[in-house]
Amino acid sequence: MNHIPTFDDIRETHERISIYINKTPVLSSDAINELAGCYVFFKCENLQKIGAFKARGGMNAVLSLSKEEQQKGITTHSSGNHAQAIALAAKAVGTKAYIVMPNNAPEIKKNGVKYLGGEIIECEPTLEARETTVQKIIDEKGATFVHPFNNYDVIAGQATAAIELIEQAGELNVIMAPVGGGGLLSGTALAAHYLMPNAEVIAGEPEGAADAIRSFKSGKIEKAPYIKTIADGLLTNLGDKTLEIIRTYVKDIITVSEEEIIAAMRLVWEQLKIVIEPSSAVPFAALLKENQRFAGKRIGIILTGGNVDLGKLPF
Amino acid sequence: MNHIPTFDDIRETHERISIYINKTPVLSSDAINELAGCYVFFKCENLQKIGAFKARGGMNAVLSLSKEEQQKGITTHSSGNHAQAIALAAKAVGTKAYIVMPNNAPEIKKNGVKYLGGEIIECEPTLEARETTVQKIIDEKGATFVHPFNNYDVIAGQATAAIELIEQAGELNVIMAPVGGGGLLSGTALAAHYLMPNAEVIAGEPEGAADAIRSFKSGKIEKAPYIKTIADGLLTNLGDKTLEIIRTYVKDIITVSEEEIIAAMRLVWEQLKIVIEPSSAVPFAALLKENQRFAGKRIGIILTGGNVDLGKLPF
Repeated sequence: MNHIPTFDDIRETHERISIYINKTPVLSSDAINELAGCYVFFKCENLQKIGAFKARGGMNAVLSLSKEEQQKGITTHSSGNHAQAIALAAKAVGTKAYIVMPNNAPEIKKNGVKYLGGEIIECEPTLEARETTVQKIIDEKGATFVHPFNNYDVIAGQATAAIELIEQAGELNVIMAPVGGGGLLSGTALAAHYLMPNAEVIAGEPEGAADAIRSFKSGKIEKAPYIKTIADGLLTNLGDKTLEIIRTYVKDIITVSEEEIIAAMRLVWEQLKIVIEPSSAVPFAALLKENQRFAGKRIGIILTGGNVDLGKLPF
Repeated sequence: MNHIPTFDDIRETHERISIYINKTPVLSSDAINELAGCYVFFKCENLQKIGAFKARGGMNAVLSLSKEEQQKGITTHSSGNHAQAIALAAKAVGTKAYIVMPNNAPEIKKNGVKYLGGEIIECEPTLEARETTVQKIIDEKGATFVHPFNNYDVIAGQATAAIELIEQAGELNVIMAPVGGGGLLSGTALAAHYLMPNAEVIAGEPEGAADAIRSFKSGKIEKAPYIKTIADGLLTNLGDKTLEIIRTYVKDIITVSEEEIIAAMRLVWEQLKIVIEPSSAVPFAALLKENQRFAGKRIGIILTGGNVDLGKLPF
């Protein structure tokens, strides 16, 4: 797709991917509502296939290719959830996934891709090496590159989480998501704009990876002043496509400290009894930080994933 | 109710309690199915109100009382999930819950009851002190005692988890649950007997609290040879009512080691992305231990609860 997804695009995307993904539940907790002073509806994408919302966008991007393109294989560079999303999608259409990963990527990430039948191509841990290696695969195999977020098919896929959330939770005053590269936030903002135009879309971002808030204000893709956060899914900068959508349809970005992220993560584990990764806790941390602003409202939050190393918990 | 619950009793129970409890989701995982060599459907009672299936039985017992009985209050002795279940049920009907707890009960358990408006009465940490204190409350307040498991209304309530599981997962060859006092296992066995009589009901029990397997074989209520298990929800012995139902409708009890419980618990956390307490992992540990016996079958497992101290994880 070479345009900002329309409502029809997103609806068709949802139909296309629905048999390949989980319709994840929406959970809530009286104790959390009381503590937060508002009604919070958590969309549990940690319970999604591969343990993250990325399954949606990757699946849509691959399913949207022609049969000929699919047969030549898919490639991407990622050491995170997008790698598994592409491996899953390639497996679903019976083709190969060539996943470029830095040679220092954790075994658990490599195993996740291998389990899904993906082929891992290791490279030096620099962005340049990643891009060169992917380009080589494109040239040699004719594989199609699927960018993890700066891609309208991916954005349309991520939008389907908010589509389901709105259907499951009913009227919402605010919808919140974290922001890394901005694929999920863009999709969420579009879904809200089409289905619930009066709802505000607000993002959470770590103080230790505060690039999106600067880009949001300046209109240019900016880097974070410094990088130091447990929310390792949110280290990426925005792309031109996600920046444009976010500047148009997102109301605000709230930054939160490491302590606020860990406290919010622990609350979700304790009260909702689910495993979420630190990145998932960022928008809830933002809600708790500025809870006066949300008093009495109905808030939807997209919990992005649950891929966390149980041997390295922050509590 | 003064008889073993019939199918109609259980159906009426389900209608009675349904607006007060969560219809919890059933989750599954391709990775777990592949590892186990069968299809496993996990009924997530860790996502139930109060974080445990006990909400079902407690709610039914309290809702089944007359208005006059309800007004005089409810009492029980428990330092576990049943205490919160009774506090929740009392709150639902607008009456008082008098919860007798040993004076060494953890603060987190006391706070759970207080949060729900229950009144805690502390006593010495002996069974005798607990029973004397409860009797005093019955005499003084006219409150009704609700036993945590040896009570047909409670058993009918616990049966509703399996009723939902069968509805959600479809045809099952085996249904598994842990066994402590046997309330859940009794209810599960009755539900299976009425709705899916060809399914086998099999329990898991810790080797370090192996009383039910002895009672199951001898027909008398027996104690465990020794007590040493992380599955602190399964320390209780059976009662006469649960023993009778279990002897009639349960196929088998499988015991598992501490290492097997912890490994199964970790697998659930990692693959299903949910928080379960050690007791919940016991039937899944039993399945993994004897997986040849379950090869290719469709297995339902009731995950009983998610109330675990995140500061004291075994991994």
